[in-house]
Amino acid sequence: MENYILRDENAIYYECGFSCDNVIFITLGSESFFLTDARYVLEAKEYARNCSIIESSDLIKTTKELLKDSKIKKLTFDPNDFTYHIYKTLVEDLDIEFIEELNFSKQKRIIKSDDEIAILSKAAKLGKEGFKYLAKYIRKNGFNQKEQLLYFKAIEKMSQTGKFDLSFEPIVAINENAAKPHALPTKKKLKLNDLLLVDAGIKYKRYCSDRTCTSHVDFETFSFKREQNFKNKKHQKIYDLVYKAQLNAINNARSGMKASQIDALTRDVITKAGYGKYFVHSTGHGVGLDIHEFPFINSKSDVIIEDNMVFTIEPGIYLPNEFGVRIEDTIAMIDGKAVIL
Amino acid sequence: MENYILRDENAIYYECGFSCDNVIFITLGSESFFLTDARYVLEAKEYARNCSIIESSDLIKTTKELLKDSKIKKLTFDPNDFTYHIYKTLVEDLDIEFIEELNFSKQKRIIKSDDEIAILSKAAKLGKEGFKYLAKYIRKNGFNQKEQLLYFKAIEKMSQTGKFDLSFEPIVAINENAAKPHALPTKKKLKLNDLLLVDAGIKYKRYCSDRTCTSHVDFETFSFKREQNFKNKKHQKIYDLVYKAQLNAINNARSGMKASQIDALTRDVITKAGYGKYFVHSTGHGVGLDIHEFPFINSKSDVIIEDNMVFTIEPGIYLPNEFGVRIEDTIAMIDGKAVIL
Repeated sequence: MENYILRDENAIYYECGFSCDNVIFITLGSESFFLTDARYVLEAKEYARNCSIIESSDLIKTTKELLKDSKIKKLTFDPNDFTYHIYKTLVEDLDIEFIEELNFSKQKRIIKSDDEIAILSKAAKLGKEGFKYLAKYIRKNGFNQKEQLLYFKAIEKMSQTGKFDLSFEPIVAINENAAKPHALPTKKKLKLNDLLLVDAGIKYKRYCSDRTCTSHVDFETFSFKREQNFKNKKHQKIYDLVYKAQLNAINNARSGMKASQIDALTRDVITKAGYGKYFVHSTGHGVGLDIHEFPFINSKSDVIIEDNMVFTIEPGIYLPNEFGVRIEDTIAMIDGKAVIL
Repeated sequence: MENYILRDENAIYYECGFSCDNVIFITLGSESFFLTDARYVLEAKEYARNCSIIESSDLIKTTKELLKDSKIKKLTFDPNDFTYHIYKTLVEDLDIEFIEELNFSKQKRIIKSDDEIAILSKAAKLGKEGFKYLAKYIRKNGFNQKEQLLYFKAIEKMSQTGKFDLSFEPIVAINENAAKPHALPTKKKLKLNDLLLVDAGIKYKRYCSDRTCTSHVDFETFSFKREQNFKNKKHQKIYDLVYKAQLNAINNARSGMKASQIDALTRDVITKAGYGKYFVHSTGHGVGLDIHEFPFINSKSDVIIEDNMVFTIEPGIYLPNEFGVRIEDTIAMIDGKAVIL
């Protein structure tokens, strides 16, 4: 497409290497424009590449003036990037055809550059460090602490006490709370031989990490390692099954497969063992500037997996009122195969 | 309006006392419907009042079916509550007139009930406790700490180590960084006789607190009290002026005034002293379920202030590359006058 307009913060960062929470980005042929207010103009001039910075206290009004002056005939936009009200204000009195293209920025970003993979790899490394700090805290101080406090400690340790933004609000869930894929932290307290699920990630240079660990709780050897020895035999059985499903996908995913085939690599293992109906979500999602990007790894997607795609593999089994297990890593497709970041 | 549809989480909480991050709420005459997915259905059935809970894995599709069956002719919506894409999907093939009414939920919520004021008052009290915990941390450990760490500590102390959600990301800014109304935390370190600006709030029962303090830094008597003794005379002069402007508004605001008159109560004091051009924002904003609600207190608003409105009074002076001072309290209009919450 020749001419397009963006409002999404990450989509704009991808275009020019800078972004902020009040910006419109417009590309008209070979020229690009970054419209923002006085608060961000100085930084934009310093960091935004290959675009002209325009200061405005009314971005939509300035956008309309710019478009009018440009004499363009067509402009592509993502119909989820604008509210109905803003869309209407934008198109009013403009003699331009607005072309809807859903998710065109996400589509652009589906295959990562080597530089992006290096950044995502560093994000994953920093995220794992955060998990290690949290494990250390749990060994030392975790006994009898409420989920709510553990949730806060997950933020503290993952962020390295404020050094990194988180890519999403962590999930910290004990036993039956781990059976809810999107559990909110409660007053439930951590005890010996509990099962603890933690799903968390950080941002490095705006790129996200994403990882879930399910662990056996004791206060001497607690860790987020993949090898876990649960005291409770059912915990161990389900954990081993989810782990087997995850490894099956990581070891056998290949570039050229459909996303649905990768979904089947985890799902078939769990279904064959009789737990298919407790694996209530899809196998994974792309990760990049957004925590949820393309490709989506689910049973219906015909998207062909290619080298330099980055996505999660995160099978789970959720036994209502008992417990849940999810094991998630973010992988990159490199030379045809999945490599854990 | 007889029939309306909402997607905004707080707007929906206001209607029925429950909400979640995937919900559509529809009122058709005397009946209301809460559409959500399997994750939230149980809680919705327990907590949402005066509405039927409908489980759906495709909220827009179910909404369309419900609307079709209802035989209604008109439906009110907020055109900023739906993306253009979702709006189009919603209206397609429906023989219903969609009536745009911008901010109709915010408009409904502009005057708080006594119960809401009690909750907002409690939120403010808890927020002040958080400021006290942060002050204690600064006295004990604040010397030479980076803004980034102080920012994290503001989160820790305001949230009471995870007990409360924050109403927004705190601002923690030293000296010249405080001259930026929306400063991001840097590696700058806190020293004796610095000026420190902290803007932070928490949520109690989903209602927000909002307060800004500007303080003189020493590590023996540091506090967020309104009485501040700055070592630097210019700090003191500007602080006293901003404080005078804020008190002028708090003492003289009356129900029946226009919002613009309350804006003038702070602005005139600052302008007369020659600093008008450094007061770069409006005097305040409503506070409730959203951190920014109606009424907006600015120089252009003709909204009549009434009893039980709740809003901030937050004049500021920002001297670029030097420092900034903002003093903010949230007040409720009670018996015709402003009462600090």
